[in-house]
Amino acid sequence: MLQNSELHYLDNAATTMVAPEVADAIYKAMQEHWANPSSLYAPGARSEEALNAARAVVARSLGCKSRELYFTSCGSEGNNMALLGAALTRKFGRGIVVSGFEHPSVQKPLERLAAMGYDVTVVAPNPDGTLDINKMLDAVDKNTILVACMMVNNEIGTRNDVERLAAEVKRKNNRTIVHVDAVQAWMRVPIKLANIDTLAVSGHKIHAPKGVGALYLSDSLAQAFQPPYLGGEQEREKRPGTENLPYAVGLAAAVSRLSKNMKSRDAAVRALNARLREGLNAFPDVVINSPDSAVPEVLNFSENCIKSETMLAYLAEQQIYVSSASACGRGQPSHTLAAMGRDPLAIDTAIRVSFCADNTPEDVDAFLNRFEDGMKNLQKIRR
Amino acid sequence: MLQNSELHYLDNAATTMVAPEVADAIYKAMQEHWANPSSLYAPGARSEEALNAARAVVARSLGCKSRELYFTSCGSEGNNMALLGAALTRKFGRGIVVSGFEHPSVQKPLERLAAMGYDVTVVAPNPDGTLDINKMLDAVDKNTILVACMMVNNEIGTRNDVERLAAEVKRKNNRTIVHVDAVQAWMRVPIKLANIDTLAVSGHKIHAPKGVGALYLSDSLAQAFQPPYLGGEQEREKRPGTENLPYAVGLAAAVSRLSKNMKSRDAAVRALNARLREGLNAFPDVVINSPDSAVPEVLNFSENCIKSETMLAYLAEQQIYVSSASACGRGQPSHTLAAMGRDPLAIDTAIRVSFCADNTPEDVDAFLNRFEDGMKNLQKIRR
Repeated sequence: MLQNSELHYLDNAATTMVAPEVADAIYKAMQEHWANPSSLYAPGARSEEALNAARAVVARSLGCKSRELYFTSCGSEGNNMALLGAALTRKFGRGIVVSGFEHPSVQKPLERLAAMGYDVTVVAPNPDGTLDINKMLDAVDKNTILVACMMVNNEIGTRNDVERLAAEVKRKNNRTIVHVDAVQAWMRVPIKLANIDTLAVSGHKIHAPKGVGALYLSDSLAQAFQPPYLGGEQEREKRPGTENLPYAVGLAAAVSRLSKNMKSRDAAVRALNARLREGLNAFPDVVINSPDSAVPEVLNFSENCIKSETMLAYLAEQQIYVSSASACGRGQPSHTLAAMGRDPLAIDTAIRVSFCADNTPEDVDAFLNRFEDGMKNLQKIRR
Repeated sequence: MLQNSELHYLDNAATTMVAPEVADAIYKAMQEHWANPSSLYAPGARSEEALNAARAVVARSLGCKSRELYFTSCGSEGNNMALLGAALTRKFGRGIVVSGFEHPSVQKPLERLAAMGYDVTVVAPNPDGTLDINKMLDAVDKNTILVACMMVNNEIGTRNDVERLAAEVKRKNNRTIVHVDAVQAWMRVPIKLANIDTLAVSGHKIHAPKGVGALYLSDSLAQAFQPPYLGGEQEREKRPGTENLPYAVGLAAAVSRLSKNMKSRDAAVRALNARLREGLNAFPDVVINSPDSAVPEVLNFSENCIKSETMLAYLAEQQIYVSSASACGRGQPSHTLAAMGRDPLAIDTAIRVSFCADNTPEDVDAFLNRFEDGMKNLQKIRR
């Protein structure tokens, strides 16, 4: 890592380190903006101004109006809020279409809607980790009230063409709501909101702290939207609770920091990804699970020899941190690889390396060296 | 204020300033505990340890087990989560009983449940601002699934005897869930959880930042509880989203800071309250809205002469900050005073002064002096 040459943190899809300038902005906001943004006196108005300024920065990063941008406490909240709040606005049908490798905060609320009588069609990803948008579209008809698809898969990095999906969904049924989980996409790939009604992002994947996110909710849906939680008039009555001003300011600082150099970061991360792929070529048993079209931030592969947890622990001894699947599953087998139809050995030996722009070629080399030692020395799974 | 003698912040029921040691703890946690608490390597385990240590501190302040304590993003979330998640666990009836001066984050979710077919009985407070617990109990029967009552009212400071209410409710129907909004009570009055199933608190009323809170959810209800939001396995699968570790640590720091001196703080705030009441005696038109049994932190009165907003703006010119009603209503007339049956003049001229232990007698005197000038010089409402 740029900050610490001993540390090789390669699990940035799980969470990222808080950037120093973000932590400083939060610390300052905790001191300066003590007043409740809803209070009518001058310090309250200053808090509200700071909140609105932060909202404008975050909205600009998504290309929406400030008033379409709602602060949340995390990506999971944004997904739940969007899906539950949007589904209830549509009474003309019960159909929902969703990809088969969504984050649990999309998958599980939709399972609940299914239990409530909604007709949920789950479209599995292809064996190569891509998602066939046409299969999603085939499932959309006049009864489809909602389509949900993540922009970038969190486990293997697949970049789904949600832009085309959204456009085609609206062509088939312009009353169908399109929700996008863009948690792994934000500030990594450009986001275009055309035809998208709701889109959730998270701060802790872009070097803001855990505990803040944002939800885009299009003007056209805002009035009908049924907020799952009710209370005060904060966030245009869509999300009650006194606003988390310090983290909103921090989220804006994280956005500002990353929006300066999106292209050069992308190039740097692509080079890291290529270096890792090249290094992995030396291992004949390794099979890459990430499709070629995946974002460069995520490279998932199965080494097909040693249990993931054994390899991960071995790597961690030298402060090389990667994961086997998503962090929120706490080491459970990857549901994305299962949805792709991978065999148990591939799933049991999967490793996800995920980069941020603070990673260096030395991080990749440290990983590859230790990985090579592990492949030689660790006990292989008996086949 | 202790920190700044020019500033007289007397709106601590709206929000409190972040204590310096709390801000420092958060800043440090943002730097040190960068790893996802769900990650299995050592830095993740350290994050999890820090989260658990914070949880233990907060749980201790409520007198519950750590595993009964769930971090939330605010008091409003806690109230919504508790009410919606608990109501669905009871199928034996449709009755709900609630006081008539709850926070909107309790009132509005119950209005939604009423619209869904639940039979919600609202028990108005007495004209003197107290709540007749017996009237609440009279409404409880074998069909009552839920009783909700705040511990301390946010607008006038009424200390409701929720302990007796909870005990008597359980005697009448031991399957009835008791929810308590303790946002204005926490760290001000002792909390006893006996017979209470769910209880919500908030950080920004105790000098932690806005954007963090906690929900007590009793072990006996945990298994049946239906979390409104679903996703990863965080917070024992009751509240998805990567945990806001920095704020959890900050919340614990705020608790530790205040638990040292609860009695001496109470005495200091009682003295401030008495000083204010004595000063207000000089104004014959002033009618105190807070009952004698209210907590000392809140003193609400109607001056019956000048519109609240005019008086508030006049006070604010000298950095004396108070409010007319709750902050989340953004200057809307007090719904608590309306529920008490106060006349329009009393409601239009209401002022809420709310203390914390950092306030000084000089703050009270500054308020009284400027208030006296205002009563002399500002334009009176024509009656």
